[in-house]
Amino acid sequence: MPFVNIRITNEGATAEQKQELIQGVTDLLQKVLNKNPATTFVIIDEVETDNWGVGGTAVTTLRKRAAEAAAAKSSS
Amino acid sequence: MPFVNIRITNEGATAEQKQELIQGVTDLLQKVLNKNPATTFVIIDEVETDNWGVGGTAVTTLRKRAAEAAAAKSSS
Amino acid sequence: MPFVNIRITNEGATAEQKQELIQGVTDLLQKVLNKNPATTFVIIDEVETDNWGVGGTAVTTLRKRAAEAAAAKSSS
Amino acid sequence: MPFVNIRITNEGATAEQKQELIQGVTDLLQKVLNKNPATTFVIIDEVETDNWGVGGTAVTTLRKRAAEAAAAKSSS
Amino acid sequence: MPFVNIRITNEGATAEQKQELIQGVTDLLQKVLNKNPATTFVIIDEVETDNWGVGGTAVTTLRKRAAEAAAAKSSS
Amino acid sequence: MPFVNIRITNEGATAEQKQELIQGVTDLLQKVLNKNPATTFVIIDEVETDNWGVGGTAVTTLRKRAAEAAAAKSSS
Repeated sequence: MPFVNIRITNEGATAEQKQELIQGVTDLLQKVLNKNPATTFVIIDEVETDNWGVGGTAVTTLRKRAAEAAAAKSSS
Repeated sequence: MPFVNIRITNEGATAEQKQELIQGVTDLLQKVLNKNPATTFVIIDEVETDNWGVGGTAVTTLRKRAAEAAAAKSSS
Repeated sequence: MPFVNIRITNEGATAEQKQELIQGVTDLLQKVLNKNPATTFVIIDEVETDNWGVGGTAVTTLRKRAAEAAAAKSSS
Repeated sequence: MPFVNIRITNEGATAEQKQELIQGVTDLLQKVLNKNPATTFVIIDEVETDNWGVGGTAVTTLRKRAAEAAAAKSSS
Repeated sequence: MPFVNIRITNEGATAEQKQELIQGVTDLLQKVLNKNPATTFVIIDEVETDNWGVGGTAVTTLRKRAAEAAAAKSSS
Repeated sequence: MPFVNIRITNEGATAEQKQELIQGVTDLLQKVLNKNPATTFVIIDEVETDNWGVGGTAVTTLRKRAAEAAAAKSSS
């Protein structure tokens, strides 16, 4: 009866991809710990990039900087 | 000062039902452990059915299968 | 298939009390939202009082202050 | 590599305020425990006031009562 | 930068099995969503069986019942 | 009434350091969002290094590798 919570930024994961994560994690727990899939819960939370910070900076800003750097590089 | 997090699928729980859950859990903790309601937090998360998996399958798909099975049964 | 996480301070809840919480929350979700007990998970986390803060102060300290105040009162 | 989850009611926190929380928590963990900001995750969850209860009552109701009390006071 | 929290009952998962879960989940997120392993956090919580309930009953009790049923069967 | 959960590896944080984190986070939420300290909860979870993975590897192993690299460097 494992409970798995996957938290990712809300950046367009499709229903198919989320199904693949659900299936993959359930299979992994069955393989490694012989856990019963029927009582394995997987919950995926998609978090807005304003609401997720790394290195003290919101992901929205990190993505913007990365895009600007890439644009600057491609135009140089 | 208990903290209770209730996670349910996002399938139409009304404000009244959520209030009933909040009141019920708070009363339960007061009755069983004599916890002070004034510092008992209850948070309810409603999760999209694409984002909740059981038995390796997203609830969206499980609900669809159940509806199809019911339809097939009622038309047979 | 609700998932409920109850967080309380680690201050001596007995196995019987925890069973009562598990049963009570499961019954509540069945009554209010008609959720199936067989797929209702309840997890209780017991947190050390050094690790739980309210009003900016660890519960260990809050408990100590309360005990000292009670002692002072009873000896006055 | 700390992971910090901040849960607040969904009552209008701006992107700037959320950035300030992310930066502040990351700095605090670096100062107190010398944790590396580059691997410090901060996630902010904003919860609907119907879904957050204190003292057995949803915050939506608490806010309404407070507003009514304030209105009654100012009109008396 | 995904964050994955795996909650299992505290029933003897070895360090090797936990490493296998950590590796497996990280690989899955890289394969499905192209997430960078270097910023993928996996945390495993092992919960006492008194503290985990399913169907309104603590796992400690469920395990005991299952053992008694198995013993009764093998001795019949 | 914010709820803050800080998860760190179980590597010797003292009661004083945990108090500093509790106070710091509570002050930050009061400063940034004017949240009432009296109803601000902070919970710190300390996770075993076998149970925390980054880059697909348990922290126990990462710490061991780092110590071996440091030892090799200092003896070269």
